[in-house]
Amino acid sequence: MLQVVIIGSGNVAQHLIKAFLQSAHIQLVQAVARHPEQLSHLLPADQITSSFIDIKQADIYILSVTDSAIAQVSAQLPFTGRLVVHTSGSTGIEVLDNKNRRGVFYPLQTFSKNKDLDFSTVPLCLESEDVSDYTTLYTLATALSKSVYSISSKQRRALHVAAVFVNNFTNHMYFQGNKVCNEHNIPFEILQPLIQETAAKIKSLAPVQAQTGPAIRHDQQTINRHLEFITDRNQNAIYTLLTQSIQETT
Amino acid sequence: MLQVVIIGSGNVAQHLIKAFLQSAHIQLVQAVARHPEQLSHLLPADQITSSFIDIKQADIYILSVTDSAIAQVSAQLPFTGRLVVHTSGSTGIEVLDNKNRRGVFYPLQTFSKNKDLDFSTVPLCLESEDVSDYTTLYTLATALSKSVYSISSKQRRALHVAAVFVNNFTNHMYFQGNKVCNEHNIPFEILQPLIQETAAKIKSLAPVQAQTGPAIRHDQQTINRHLEFITDRNQNAIYTLLTQSIQETT
Repeated sequence: MLQVVIIGSGNVAQHLIKAFLQSAHIQLVQAVARHPEQLSHLLPADQITSSFIDIKQADIYILSVTDSAIAQVSAQLPFTGRLVVHTSGSTGIEVLDNKNRRGVFYPLQTFSKNKDLDFSTVPLCLESEDVSDYTTLYTLATALSKSVYSISSKQRRALHVAAVFVNNFTNHMYFQGNKVCNEHNIPFEILQPLIQETAAKIKSLAPVQAQTGPAIRHDQQTINRHLEFITDRNQNAIYTLLTQSIQETT
Repeated sequence: MLQVVIIGSGNVAQHLIKAFLQSAHIQLVQAVARHPEQLSHLLPADQITSSFIDIKQADIYILSVTDSAIAQVSAQLPFTGRLVVHTSGSTGIEVLDNKNRRGVFYPLQTFSKNKDLDFSTVPLCLESEDVSDYTTLYTLATALSKSVYSISSKQRRALHVAAVFVNNFTNHMYFQGNKVCNEHNIPFEILQPLIQETAAKIKSLAPVQAQTGPAIRHDQQTINRHLEFITDRNQNAIYTLLTQSIQETT
């Protein structure tokens, strides 16, 4: 049974703790948090500490803290030679202090505070400096998820950029659609089936095959009519740029 | 039982024909198509005609042709005073020739040739000039779908713009994410759970609440690192503009 200590109390840390507690192959030894009360709904008090000197022995230490705190927190750990991993998509493995064996355990998903998630479908992106550490990480990962990948720091950087496009920017497209609806007294729910089908399509079609609409059809009349209709400056700039990008690249 | 004639053989027309054939409350009298062979897998030959003079009597004539052909085709119909509707999101009701009673029957969904769709969840946006025609359209719509809306031409124009954002432009975000993956030998499937969860979130959260990522966090260090990483000109412009738009509007 793999013994795990998790350091952090944010969104990702909490989802990981829940997943660890549900696994028969993982023993969550301890959680380390500056504010233990943030985890009190998940763990008994004696399993949480705010003091680094009380950190217990484990096979893996998972640092799930803000990207900018990874270097500092990893340097403060009161031990050396153990396996320490971070969970960040946009941070290289080398940011971890090299007094310990380093690795990455990056769950590629968007985590919401109040929405439970089936962890078995979350892609886990693993990296380590040492082959035997990779085996340990792989054992941990496969205990949680069916979807496990070996991803280098450079690939992970690319993946994080790709995730910004398909998640952050897609959500902003939903925001703009919602804004248009609000301004014309149309319930946003009317767009829900279209949003869901757009995502569902991409399971079986490549994005280049799934592309529809006035831009890809080079339907300049409809494009002009839309641009006349859009008065918002940001919406106008987005419409113009994305129409051009669709026409140039797909 | 409502009697319907459909004019057109494209994607939307074919999905409508399938839905009509499945409804116990609608009698599809005839389909009119310049190329009858495009519908031969759906209907027997005697139910399809390519000649306007053979068009039969019906309660509703549904014009499901290219936007730019609506005016001309509606003018060519060899009868007057009947209910004729188009299915276009971006075309006003007044584009139909006024020798007949005019209406709109706009299914707000993305239709793929080779992917069947549950029509009962497709929002149908109705408009008519006459109250009793609205009742007829409403009877037709509720026979197909649980989701029926009264939408004016101006609202429909807004809705079509909103649909471009949440469908066409979202798909282009998937395209860009796919491109980044391809360039770094990462299987695109790794992004699928994120794409599906991004769409699923929006069922219970408003887009402004669901927004995450470096832009909304004003995490300039990550934004700069991403922009250094992105070499593609279109991707760079999109990343910059959408980051700015997220920061200004949400």
